[in-house]
Amino acid sequence: MFAVTILGNNSAVPAFDRHPTSQVVTYDGNNFLVDCGEGTQIQLIKYKIRRSKISHIFISHLHGDHYFGLIGLLNTLGLLGHQQELHVYGPNPLKDIIELQLKVAYTHLSFALHLHTISGPCTLVETDKITIKCFPVNHRVECYGFSFEEKKPPRKLLPEKAIEHKIPAVFYERLKTGEDYMTKDGATIENEWVTEPAEKGKSYAFCADTKYDEAILQHIAGFDMIYHETTYLDNLRERAIERFHSTSKQAAEIAKRAGVKKLLIGHFSSKYDTLDEFEKEAREVFPDTALALEGVAFTI
Amino acid sequence: MFAVTILGNNSAVPAFDRHPTSQVVTYDGNNFLVDCGEGTQIQLIKYKIRRSKISHIFISHLHGDHYFGLIGLLNTLGLLGHQQELHVYGPNPLKDIIELQLKVAYTHLSFALHLHTISGPCTLVETDKITIKCFPVNHRVECYGFSFEEKKPPRKLLPEKAIEHKIPAVFYERLKTGEDYMTKDGATIENEWVTEPAEKGKSYAFCADTKYDEAILQHIAGFDMIYHETTYLDNLRERAIERFHSTSKQAAEIAKRAGVKKLLIGHFSSKYDTLDEFEKEAREVFPDTALALEGVAFTI
Repeated sequence: MFAVTILGNNSAVPAFDRHPTSQVVTYDGNNFLVDCGEGTQIQLIKYKIRRSKISHIFISHLHGDHYFGLIGLLNTLGLLGHQQELHVYGPNPLKDIIELQLKVAYTHLSFALHLHTISGPCTLVETDKITIKCFPVNHRVECYGFSFEEKKPPRKLLPEKAIEHKIPAVFYERLKTGEDYMTKDGATIENEWVTEPAEKGKSYAFCADTKYDEAILQHIAGFDMIYHETTYLDNLRERAIERFHSTSKQAAEIAKRAGVKKLLIGHFSSKYDTLDEFEKEAREVFPDTALALEGVAFTI
Repeated sequence: MFAVTILGNNSAVPAFDRHPTSQVVTYDGNNFLVDCGEGTQIQLIKYKIRRSKISHIFISHLHGDHYFGLIGLLNTLGLLGHQQELHVYGPNPLKDIIELQLKVAYTHLSFALHLHTISGPCTLVETDKITIKCFPVNHRVECYGFSFEEKKPPRKLLPEKAIEHKIPAVFYERLKTGEDYMTKDGATIENEWVTEPAEKGKSYAFCADTKYDEAILQHIAGFDMIYHETTYLDNLRERAIERFHSTSKQAAEIAKRAGVKKLLIGHFSSKYDTLDEFEKEAREVFPDTALALEGVAFTI
């Protein structure tokens, strides 16, 4: 399963039972946590997300509503005797902040904690199945979005065709990688005769806190799903610009220009007690928009 | 009103919808916040405690379940445009931790924040109505309890007696402070003839995280109400000692020896999903014990 579950969708101040930013990307049995506002550990319990399956945590920037819950979560994992090593990525000086707080309490974590400093666009994680990258976005402080791209899965073998061409079963794995088969008499069995292309790998991007900026399009073009912030409705566009945030229309414009399939919107200002207008406004520009509602898991 | 409202009563790890330590002491229109575990700002909203009335915050020690919510609360007060100055007291290096986190986000708070370092027993706040002191307790790290003592209110004037003795009304305030009145002929009207003693000032102490230690008795003797931690039931007394915590029986023993009127118990380990046994065990030693249940306001 490749999905994202929303744990918090509000901007700076908690309000109307909405929590600060956090979401968990689930892929292949791992939980990748993206941002960790205050109370995230409680949201994880509420929505039954297994904390023990969190292998990586990505922090977009050092505004409190995106990371004040990190130290508490790390502490709790330690107290629960978590064993799996944990990688945390965030801009400077996240590492110092966390290390200072662990040190003053003489905390000995039960697991290996690796605190990585992000300082530009790069690949953070690469396995044989997925690539996770960060890309800079345009906010008041150093801030990064994160993209999750499933690698193109292997080609699909057509067994009856492979048998017809007398290819030994031991060669099947190599066929899936796209190799041609050479017979003993030197004839070539072309790969396309015995396999067919698999579906394209799925992709998701979290675009963090950002003002409207087309510079991010290159990092999310053609993605299956993106999350883009919409702190304000479009009648507060000036305020959005001034505060390096976006409006619902602007988020939808980005989704449209990037040619993505689906848009999630969140990071709603505490000014708004209801959210219908955000969805309505965005859908006028980009119909396949959904509100990033807390507790909802979106399959990518 | 002099009361304490419980915002969190659990130990280290949040569980069973119980939150980490925080309570608010309300006196004379001020809210004094004691400890501030993660999520305290959300508990304040839930229990309708006015954040704008918080004038002082006291942090007992730097284990995360007692202070991880502080930076978020300060940040939120700033975003809400809080104006009243705010005093925060806690052991070293709380000041550094908070200042670092404010600095990295270029936070300009809307109010004057005074971060005070506690480094031994002393009087932290003294007004004409209340004295707030800190006293060291016996925990794994530097840790303080906090006592709130209402000053003995003025004596009560007996108006008919004052008239009978022909004391001018302009002298009444001085009578309340205990002064005698001297007539023009040099006769003394003794204070006790025209006033009666007021009730004793009320008192409350928060004894923080501590192992059983009679050294704290001197700081809480005869108090109207104390809060004492009871992380474990008494069958885990050895574990309590080892971890510098107390059992319910030990908390009750302290209350009994200190000769206090009422005991609140809290800081329950996440091992326990129900709390009845804590109350039962403590009451065997000290009958006027209550569970520090979240959302409950106890009048002192």
